[in-house]
Amino acid sequence: MTNANRRLVEHIFQNARFVGSLGIELSAFGFGWCETKLTATPVVEQQHGFIHAGVLMTIADHTCGGAAASTVPEDKDVITVENNVTFLRPALGPILICRADVLRTGRNLVFVEAKVSVERDGACVLMAKASSTLAVIRLRSPENVLR
Amino acid sequence: MTNANRRLVEHIFQNARFVGSLGIELSAFGFGWCETKLTATPVVEQQHGFIHAGVLMTIADHTCGGAAASTVPEDKDVITVENNVTFLRPALGPILICRADVLRTGRNLVFVEAKVSVERDGACVLMAKASSTLAVIRLRSPENVLR
Amino acid sequence: MTNANRRLVEHIFQNARFVGSLGIELSAFGFGWCETKLTATPVVEQQHGFIHAGVLMTIADHTCGGAAASTVPEDKDVITVENNVTFLRPALGPILICRADVLRTGRNLVFVEAKVSVERDGACVLMAKASSTLAVIRLRSPENVLR
Amino acid sequence: MTNANRRLVEHIFQNARFVGSLGIELSAFGFGWCETKLTATPVVEQQHGFIHAGVLMTIADHTCGGAAASTVPEDKDVITVENNVTFLRPALGPILICRADVLRTGRNLVFVEAKVSVERDGACVLMAKASSTLAVIRLRSPENVLR
Repeated sequence: MTNANRRLVEHIFQNARFVGSLGIELSAFGFGWCETKLTATPVVEQQHGFIHAGVLMTIADHTCGGAAASTVPEDKDVITVENNVTFLRPALGPILICRADVLRTGRNLVFVEAKVSVERDGACVLMAKASSTLAVIRLRSPENVLR
Repeated sequence: MTNANRRLVEHIFQNARFVGSLGIELSAFGFGWCETKLTATPVVEQQHGFIHAGVLMTIADHTCGGAAASTVPEDKDVITVENNVTFLRPALGPILICRADVLRTGRNLVFVEAKVSVERDGACVLMAKASSTLAVIRLRSPENVLR
Repeated sequence: MTNANRRLVEHIFQNARFVGSLGIELSAFGFGWCETKLTATPVVEQQHGFIHAGVLMTIADHTCGGAAASTVPEDKDVITVENNVTFLRPALGPILICRADVLRTGRNLVFVEAKVSVERDGACVLMAKASSTLAVIRLRSPENVLR
Repeated sequence: MTNANRRLVEHIFQNARFVGSLGIELSAFGFGWCETKLTATPVVEQQHGFIHAGVLMTIADHTCGGAAASTVPEDKDVITVENNVTFLRPALGPILICRADVLRTGRNLVFVEAKVSVERDGACVLMAKASSTLAVIRLRSPENVLR
């Protein structure tokens, strides 16, 4: 992983207001992988008191973005094309952990998968599994994406 | 659609704190369909200034939930099992519209699809397309889901 | 739709041995859409006597490919990147109909969705719903795909 | 895994005519997992000479079915509800290997994921990644599925 990749991953987390507002934090990353953490507060709950599916999808999407960003050339960036998320169990917090791993990084597309787990009593229980496809775009040219 | 369905759909939107905190509003619904609206503020943006994929997935998921809830028997509720979302274009606000339609409602599962669009200059442009599968569960027993 | 698009769509159906071996036929197509038909024989069945999910996915995938191919520039071709298929009902034949429509065609990616239905007693019942993402590649250079 | 599970997995492969006609073979299985193999012939190719996406989806779907079947109670069976498949690389044969692992088995739903790989020069290269959701149904009552 180059310094440019490192800066891109950090930028993706520092400058995404929505992700920051939820309290999602970058924990660790390397070439082809990324880990994040969220300490859930009641504002992220849905009507049954579980963490909203949208929050699980948001942390999965953004962590996949971090993992993908760690693999692209210096003048490139990434943007999500597709997400598929399976919800294995209703998620109670408070601590959500997400780990994303790149399956393949190519010239135009990066394929990533992610696990969203809950830490409970020292064990880590898998709550959701995601697969994400991202397009490789020119840095600072997201308006050209998918053109 | 029965009065119980009407109450369930309204409950799903009134009691989901995360959805309320984003400003997602229930616009209209009937048997097998649901429409919602979000006036986006900068807090829902990602690092390029677009609306975060997680927000598009949240409005799609919850609107599909509303559509599904309009079709289940009186003693039942729904919870999301799987979402697949395709991002056709980067989404700029400010007004997001979501429309969800049930493809099939069954005893155990409900299949729904949704469109997330942006209103711009009087036109409606499709930003994301979602398909959502929901499990039918006993009312007030989400802890039993998927058991 | 140009003559090159017309030739590409026809080529995709004439030269895909697997699709021909199942009996999938190109019925009609235009710019951004494609329709196919399959008269099912017992060889396409699974263990319950229904048409195998793999057959429904094959007709959906290939019909989406035809629809995508109708929209690309003259020197381009398409190849599938991702498919998501929901099975609404177990499918009994004998006549399967598939209709694919392009949601967005871009420089690098084409987004398509498809319905697989059964004709029965004069009515058309939806069996499966698919969404397909295809990469735009150089004509006769599939080995370069996703590089 | 009980003897009933063993019989169900074997039944699923012995009685699925479509899977047998493609040459897909059950290699090994245990509680929560299943492995299969396909020696590809030209009839499974698409127009570029690669193995058709439909064949990769068929082997993934059926192997996920085998893995799911290894986990259900004695009077139950499974049927596919949803498949999501990502194609990482164009697949050339001749030997396809598929491995499916159950992520969670529940009363009504089983969540499985699968890898489809090619054996080449002693190495195993990942071609496609699938996630599959299956409904648990009564044995010999597939007509009741999803009701």
